[in-house]
Amino acid sequence: MILALDIGNSRTKLALFEKDTLIQHLILDTEKIKKEIENILKKINSPVEIIVSSVGKWNSQNLKWLHNLGKTIIISPQTTMPFKNLYETPLSLGIDRMALVAGAVLKYPLNNKLIIDAGTCITFDFVNKKNEYLGGSISPGIQLRYKSLNDYTDRLPLLTSKYPNTLIGNSTTEAIHSGIINGILYELDGFINKYLDTYPNLTVILTGGDTDFLAKRLKSTIFANSNFLLESLNSLHQYLIIENDKKNLP
Amino acid sequence: MILALDIGNSRTKLALFEKDTLIQHLILDTEKIKKEIENILKKINSPVEIIVSSVGKWNSQNLKWLHNLGKTIIISPQTTMPFKNLYETPLSLGIDRMALVAGAVLKYPLNNKLIIDAGTCITFDFVNKKNEYLGGSISPGIQLRYKSLNDYTDRLPLLTSKYPNTLIGNSTTEAIHSGIINGILYELDGFINKYLDTYPNLTVILTGGDTDFLAKRLKSTIFANSNFLLESLNSLHQYLIIENDKKNLP
Repeated sequence: MILALDIGNSRTKLALFEKDTLIQHLILDTEKIKKEIENILKKINSPVEIIVSSVGKWNSQNLKWLHNLGKTIIISPQTTMPFKNLYETPLSLGIDRMALVAGAVLKYPLNNKLIIDAGTCITFDFVNKKNEYLGGSISPGIQLRYKSLNDYTDRLPLLTSKYPNTLIGNSTTEAIHSGIINGILYELDGFINKYLDTYPNLTVILTGGDTDFLAKRLKSTIFANSNFLLESLNSLHQYLIIENDKKNLP
Repeated sequence: MILALDIGNSRTKLALFEKDTLIQHLILDTEKIKKEIENILKKINSPVEIIVSSVGKWNSQNLKWLHNLGKTIIISPQTTMPFKNLYETPLSLGIDRMALVAGAVLKYPLNNKLIIDAGTCITFDFVNKKNEYLGGSISPGIQLRYKSLNDYTDRLPLLTSKYPNTLIGNSTTEAIHSGIINGILYELDGFINKYLDTYPNLTVILTGGDTDFLAKRLKSTIFANSNFLLESLNSLHQYLIIENDKKNLP
């Protein structure tokens, strides 16, 4: 079994895979992951290999703990990847974005690929069909936009995200929902159409915490998969095992 | 002569009009406006009437000072307007948005009108050809988006707005410029096209501090006029004088 961990600042997503099948997945407070993971592994009671994408750094104590649970791969900028990174500043590319790109390349090796991660930020990552990663874009995610309207102005309230009832908001509240949510949808469709103009054979994957909220309303054809990062970690694990075996051939 | 004042939290825009002609306009620190305005009026040395759009409230001392300079109209939610306000929460509609709508109605009375104000926030305001104001939308402006990426994440830098070189940013910096600026352009064009679908005879006015930065790159046909609020104050002043004369007819 493979245990995939996507460790964020506040939340950690965890998934157990048996080959390509996702057996179980859950979301934990990052502070509490140790105990929870130990409990889960006790229950399944079979050996696991682990792959980790983490936004923060690991201290030696945590590393030791992980390695005691099973053979562990922690993705780093030095990890062998199934794509060529043409980013001008490859070290500044987040580990989570690297894992998403790897997953897309392994799943759709022959297509142009656009991965949209709609979470705290909205990131676009593009890999051409030669599997060269070219870069992408970053803009504020849904929550950041609501928060910024309230924090940086005197008069606008902090709202919880909600589908706008109409294009034309007839109150401050409805005007904010329309501006932010319709605005993001136009932004996403606009970017996707522009990519399609240049790269016709394009597979678009939408992932991240706001996947389900956004997917239904987009006009573009996309694969919506909120677990794509976890699935990518699993594919990347398989890839790295094979790559490692190749290196160890006589 | 008409002195139009658009008083914001930090900056005040001032313009002098002779009938429909803008004679002079400048931007002042709101804290320093009194001295500057007195100097300007001393120089022109002819009577002025004043019209004011202010985001804040006026204390009696400031009001007295204004009235001593010339006959003054301070726009309030009670001011007679050349449009019917169908906003569900009319009192929550900012004075500056009211003035923009009034200006659009007076300039294009027979058309559907969409006024986009690209400043701290990006606001859309729609008035149909019957001159009924229906509402609009609010989303974060350019600077708010840059600021929020830096303030609410651990790793993204605070950048000064700049046209992206490409669709696909190949560094964190270029990715942010592409995400924010291309994103806003797609958002604006997306909204405009959606309005056009429903209201074909549509005049679109783009105004606010980021007018010139955005206007060149939009695909839609718009009137770009960064002084539209000041011009609207001047038209509204003429309108209110005529309305007042009507009331005083025997």
